Amino acid sequence: MGEIQAVAWADGAVRLLDQTRLPQEERELQITDYRDLAAAIRDLRVRGAPAIGIAAAYGVVLAARSIQTADRETFLARLREATDVLAATRPTAVNLFWALRRMAAVAEAAPDPEAARHALLEEALRIHREDVAANRAMGRHGAALIPDGATVLTHCNTGALATGGYGTALGVVRAAVAAGKRVRVLVDETRPLLQGARLTAWELQREGIPATLMVDGAAGSMMRRGLVACVLVGADRIAANGDVANKIGTYALAVLAREHGLPFYVAAPASSVDLSLASGDGIPIEERRPEEVTHVAGVPVAPAGVDVANPAFDVTPAAYVTAIITERGVARPPYGASLAALCSAEAAGRPAAAG
Amino acid sequence: MGEIQAVAWADGAVRLLDQTRLPQEERELQITDYRDLAAAIRDLRVRGAPAIGIAAAYGVVLAARSIQTADRETFLARLREATDVLAATRPTAVNLFWALRRMAAVAEAAPDPEAARHALLEEALRIHREDVAANRAMGRHGAALIPDGATVLTHCNTGALATGGYGTALGVVRAAVAAGKRVRVLVDETRPLLQGARLTAWELQREGIPATLMVDGAAGSMMRRGLVACVLVGADRIAANGDVANKIGTYALAVLAREHGLPFYVAAPASSVDLSLASGDGIPIEERRPEEVTHVAGVPVAPAGVDVANPAFDVTPAAYVTAIITERGVARPPYGASLAALCSAEAAGRPAAAG
Repeated sequence: MGEIQAVAWADGAVRLLDQTRLPQEERELQITDYRDLAAAIRDLRVRGAPAIGIAAAYGVVLAARSIQTADRETFLARLREATDVLAATRPTAVNLFWALRRMAAVAEAAPDPEAARHALLEEALRIHREDVAANRAMGRHGAALIPDGATVLTHCNTGALATGGYGTALGVVRAAVAAGKRVRVLVDETRPLLQGARLTAWELQREGIPATLMVDGAAGSMMRRGLVACVLVGADRIAANGDVANKIGTYALAVLAREHGLPFYVAAPASSVDLSLASGDGIPIEERRPEEVTHVAGVPVAPAGVDVANPAFDVTPAAYVTAIITERGVARPPYGASLAALCSAEAAGRPAAAG
Repeated sequence: MGEIQAVAWADGAVRLLDQTRLPQEERELQITDYRDLAAAIRDLRVRGAPAIGIAAAYGVVLAARSIQTADRETFLARLREATDVLAATRPTAVNLFWALRRMAAVAEAAPDPEAARHALLEEALRIHREDVAANRAMGRHGAALIPDGATVLTHCNTGALATGGYGTALGVVRAAVAAGKRVRVLVDETRPLLQGARLTAWELQREGIPATLMVDGAAGSMMRRGLVACVLVGADRIAANGDVANKIGTYALAVLAREHGLPFYVAAPASSVDLSLASGDGIPIEERRPEEVTHVAGVPVAPAGVDVANPAFDVTPAAYVTAIITERGVARPPYGASLAALCSAEAAGRPAAAG
């Protein structure tokens, strides 16, 4: 079994491992139209904040290749239209907008469409490469926080499937294991879309890392029974004050962790930190289709016509977060200062702080 | 649409509404062999602590009718064997053992097998009748705690389906609505077996009570957004100190409720209070099959061979419980005194305290 690849560029197309089919089927999609890529993001065939950013960047490359003009202004105008379509897919993960901004800047800087097409592919590949490198750096910084023999409770999927490769929170687990520590992972199944059961359990099984799957409601009981050493999750967006938007159910884990005196760690690349937002109150929370709750694998599990609330994410206030692990080092409270020091534009050029 | 009946005695048989088929299909089972009834309890065709107690009592009637002897000692010995089979179905709900003890006492008191058979049916019908009356009394006591316009968050199913009729926690909601209050119910879907989605949403829809379904992980976020007035759940067993065993996920709700300054109410009949246990540490927690987590509606949602933790219940320490609503009145902390006053054998004979 090779390395798990959620998204890749090959032969003029974007290849996606269709995550809606896992773990039953490893089906690869070949996408050549940016609108199909937007649909794939919306339908969660590719998901996870960093992977969405990378996929969207490749989507811009597809769009640029499809715009048949040598006129720079026409090209840029049509590229902006395509970029808007890609931006309208998922509102919460900030990496999407971050990647699209990087791509737009590259397009604007190119002298003509042909140069832009080349530069855009280079930039998308760079975003992808940087993400893998960031995950490995995050792993090195975060591994020090995981004690030998620890059982780490995690939520949703933050592994290779959610990123360019290696993973954010799961990358920290992999790095701790690579450093010789014995680590067990307690995996929240993560309703409604069961990314924990379908994706995280599958990744950990492939990696040979011991894992135990449970329903989301069991997390508190496991902590109370002394079976958890720490909680470790990813993030879809982090505000300047350290408030963390992540998969629905994360906030409950943070409250439970504090109640039990357990550390609550967040692992995310600097590209998930949105210093333009003062707090998590400004993060838009995606409300998804009721069918994600009323149906499982196409089978109805609730009466027809029932009213449903289906927020895809929640916000965990910074006060519950023990530390935020980034590729540039570990941020501790107060986050206003520590995140700005690690993640601001000025900080981006400096060498990584010690983790 | 008539009254919902989870369990009933008719024409020498136990009728069960098969709860594993709801809400897709309203299928009634006719059971005449106590071993089939034991299997139905184990397979959750009938579930909910009070309903399990009633079904088991009828199971003893089925067993008594099948024992073809006029010899009292032979009859009692074989009845004890059957009772042991019924007792071995579910370990956590105490109503099961409570009902079986009541039935055994009636059998022992009868002069001969024929008299015992008659008396056992009378006792089972009485247990059933008393449960419905207890639920209605619980409703009256509890309704006063629900403010007009409240959104009540609940977990699992505690309605007519979980009881002899009317419901415990949902009975309190029904009583508040009957008293003219506007009440909305936020329904946790309650993984793994989705009793909230399948049963509670269905019951509330039939009753015309506004309800919104959500995944279990959304409860904390709803509280933080100010959308919840109180949490109201049932119980499978309550220890003498007020510790509450209930469906997995309940403990997290209790911690979250306290974090948000919201009342956390438990509604259960006195038969769910086990004064023989000093604390919840003594309550056995049923661990159920991994397939309940790895499969939904028969469809696999996790990789084959994954390790699973599937505790069916958790224990909420009394310190998180604002009040316990019983048919004899509302118990408040300290529960050692209040539960003993309401639920001890001596208290059982006295008229109900004001709620």
